[in-house]
Amino acid sequence: MQTFIKDLSTEVGEEVTIKGWLNNKRSSGKIAFLEIRDGSGFAQAVAVKEGLPAEVWEAIDKTTQESSVEVTGKVTKHPKQEGVYELQIIPSASSGQASFKIIQLAQEYPISKKDHGPEFLMDNRHLWLRSKKQWAILRIRDTVETAINKYLHSENFIRTDSPIFTPNACEGTTTLFPVPYFDLGTAYLSQSGQLYIEAAIASVGRCYDFGPVFRAEKSATKRHLTEFWMMDAEAAFVEHDENLKIQENLVKAIVKKCLEDCQQEFKILERDVTALRVMVDKPFVRYTYDEAIKKLNKLGSDIKHGEDLGNDDEGLLTKDSDVPVFIEKWPKNIKPFYMKIDPGNSDLVLNDDLIGIEGAGELIGGSQREDDYDLLIERIGHEGLSEKDYEWYLDLRKYGSVPHSGFGIGVERVVRWISGAEHIRECVPFPRTINRLRP
Amino acid sequence: MQTFIKDLSTEVGEEVTIKGWLNNKRSSGKIAFLEIRDGSGFAQAVAVKEGLPAEVWEAIDKTTQESSVEVTGKVTKHPKQEGVYELQIIPSASSGQASFKIIQLAQEYPISKKDHGPEFLMDNRHLWLRSKKQWAILRIRDTVETAINKYLHSENFIRTDSPIFTPNACEGTTTLFPVPYFDLGTAYLSQSGQLYIEAAIASVGRCYDFGPVFRAEKSATKRHLTEFWMMDAEAAFVEHDENLKIQENLVKAIVKKCLEDCQQEFKILERDVTALRVMVDKPFVRYTYDEAIKKLNKLGSDIKHGEDLGNDDEGLLTKDSDVPVFIEKWPKNIKPFYMKIDPGNSDLVLNDDLIGIEGAGELIGGSQREDDYDLLIERIGHEGLSEKDYEWYLDLRKYGSVPHSGFGIGVERVVRWISGAEHIRECVPFPRTINRLRP
Repeated sequence: MQTFIKDLSTEVGEEVTIKGWLNNKRSSGKIAFLEIRDGSGFAQAVAVKEGLPAEVWEAIDKTTQESSVEVTGKVTKHPKQEGVYELQIIPSASSGQASFKIIQLAQEYPISKKDHGPEFLMDNRHLWLRSKKQWAILRIRDTVETAINKYLHSENFIRTDSPIFTPNACEGTTTLFPVPYFDLGTAYLSQSGQLYIEAAIASVGRCYDFGPVFRAEKSATKRHLTEFWMMDAEAAFVEHDENLKIQENLVKAIVKKCLEDCQQEFKILERDVTALRVMVDKPFVRYTYDEAIKKLNKLGSDIKHGEDLGNDDEGLLTKDSDVPVFIEKWPKNIKPFYMKIDPGNSDLVLNDDLIGIEGAGELIGGSQREDDYDLLIERIGHEGLSEKDYEWYLDLRKYGSVPHSGFGIGVERVVRWISGAEHIRECVPFPRTINRLRP
Repeated sequence: MQTFIKDLSTEVGEEVTIKGWLNNKRSSGKIAFLEIRDGSGFAQAVAVKEGLPAEVWEAIDKTTQESSVEVTGKVTKHPKQEGVYELQIIPSASSGQASFKIIQLAQEYPISKKDHGPEFLMDNRHLWLRSKKQWAILRIRDTVETAINKYLHSENFIRTDSPIFTPNACEGTTTLFPVPYFDLGTAYLSQSGQLYIEAAIASVGRCYDFGPVFRAEKSATKRHLTEFWMMDAEAAFVEHDENLKIQENLVKAIVKKCLEDCQQEFKILERDVTALRVMVDKPFVRYTYDEAIKKLNKLGSDIKHGEDLGNDDEGLLTKDSDVPVFIEKWPKNIKPFYMKIDPGNSDLVLNDDLIGIEGAGELIGGSQREDDYDLLIERIGHEGLSEKDYEWYLDLRKYGSVPHSGFGIGVERVVRWISGAEHIRECVPFPRTINRLRP
């Protein structure tokens, strides 16, 4: 019977067996402190040689880092640290079952305590995942994903998975991965499920997809992966303002859930979450694109009206903000054809980028969608796209078109921000970049 | 302010506005019955010409199937049908706000009430999704996915997404989709995330992935897709018996959640759920592979020992069973290298296939994994695979190998079974098959 380390607090005074891996060992030759992890948490086992059967102490003495072990002992509260529990491998008159067994003795572990370069760690990603920090990030990622599913269901969104194989591109064509597809020619790996979930809203009203998307980007930055996870949401009868509110509430819901569930993880990551705590109770700031450009110029950026914001601009704009910042209503000629023209100014579209605090960069991109058939045709033509490729998408404006809006959130970018990880490659279990396809 | 149809029961006697699509209309010229859907459900609006402003009746008269509409009226209980609520578009002295507005008048809808062939429906999948049955299946799929996430978290599994781009194949090589990958040569689209989550258990203990997998299968059957969704789960310190228990409890949790949440959907699909109700309270049956073959031969199948079960065999074996059937301990030479040899019989492996009832076919495949380094090397060699390709996977047996087990569940197959859909292509929003890449 295996007890999980996370449940030790309910077993104080009891003898239990935990199964896991040796994370660390200190021994004086007479007393040994063994840090064990089992995936649910970390616990220290304390063993005193005197009185222990010889083979038990021998096993303790022999065990190496990463060896898999089975430890039986009595649960005690840590004498000084609140909320910390230990296992005593000390035979007591009452039970005498204290034991320490090696399941498999690990060979010398390649990841030591010294600093390794990122390439070495990435080559050993299958092992590096075991480090405390990576464990913490994996769990924060799980919490983020769970929070997204939970919040969207609470707002009546239904999950409708988008296809990965697509016949044409949603955004741009230079960054597509082509795949030979039987007798049908070439399929492209999806860059966004948006167009598909736009179709699904006429069935389920509000929906979202949650899956991998692909960009054959030749960038090797801290923020680029060739394969990353996106959540696209889409809602019928939701217009621009409400779209921003849903995005804001989603981000707050994610952060709240992490603050609730990931205290131990934040501690391991030495992540000061003050800024997160402050943020969840404040309204997000909204700038129009115009305002943002003016503000940036004032702050010293040489960005010109009509240009996209660079990473530096995003950082500059949010550096004094304690909440994420929406930049809304961008010039239509730098944004894709499906964004709805602003009725108040036909040079602009009803879209938004949400820029995170603490240097998180762009977390969300969203917009109200063009629901007018004629305007959509015109913009498809204007962008040099083929009407034929978008025939089915245009159908959605022929048969019961409705005002609707949606957005996409990049999972790894959110995880990077919340966990405070330096590089996005740490925010996905097995990252894929231009130079990395293994393990 | 939009009221969702699913919430009408709390608004009886109130005047509300619903927004949605016209599903159907019957009119005598004096009184009209309009079936509206808004994604959350279906409701009938009743309009009486007398006393209505002329433009309101005109709009009602003019509106076509699939037109998007905004309807304001008073909520009433259906006089005869329990749990059914209607909207009365009849101006009352108290409010007089009853109205019916067309948002966009739909062109003649291509999907009529007559029978369409499957190719026509698939060409129009973006519209076909709106049909009541497809709506019901989409919602059952969402419920299945939610139930999987919920059950696994309750059993301490953490979601760890597996990569889609992989350098080598997990099972077989003839059904891989190759993708040119920058200067690194060829990547293959994942067929299973299992090997990756086996690495992650040494970090988080128990984990699962949930994403699309790809098989370039040239089969065009009712059960094959080139792109389908899998959930792979893996748990440290879980051995064969417990692995089967987790699978059984997961299937029961999924079915229970659907029985709780999808009554309306089952009714629309005319799905008799008696068999599902019976199943959730009974233990699943276990046959060894040996027993299954003998039983099949007795039942008239000509299957020989050492052969895989065909669809007919799966049907035959379960046709008199009111619970899904595990077939465990298969001959090792027809199963992959990573399955653990049965300590009781070295010709067998500790694996299982779970065959559903009601002709559902194989729902789950699982096994305890080989945790011994030498045995694993030997089996990799025996299968003619390259040791180098599996170097990282072999590492997992060098550094703290533990007994562990896992399984994979095919989302579409489960949805097909539970919804009673005839063809698996109806169980994913935008199916991809050998002949189908659009829309």
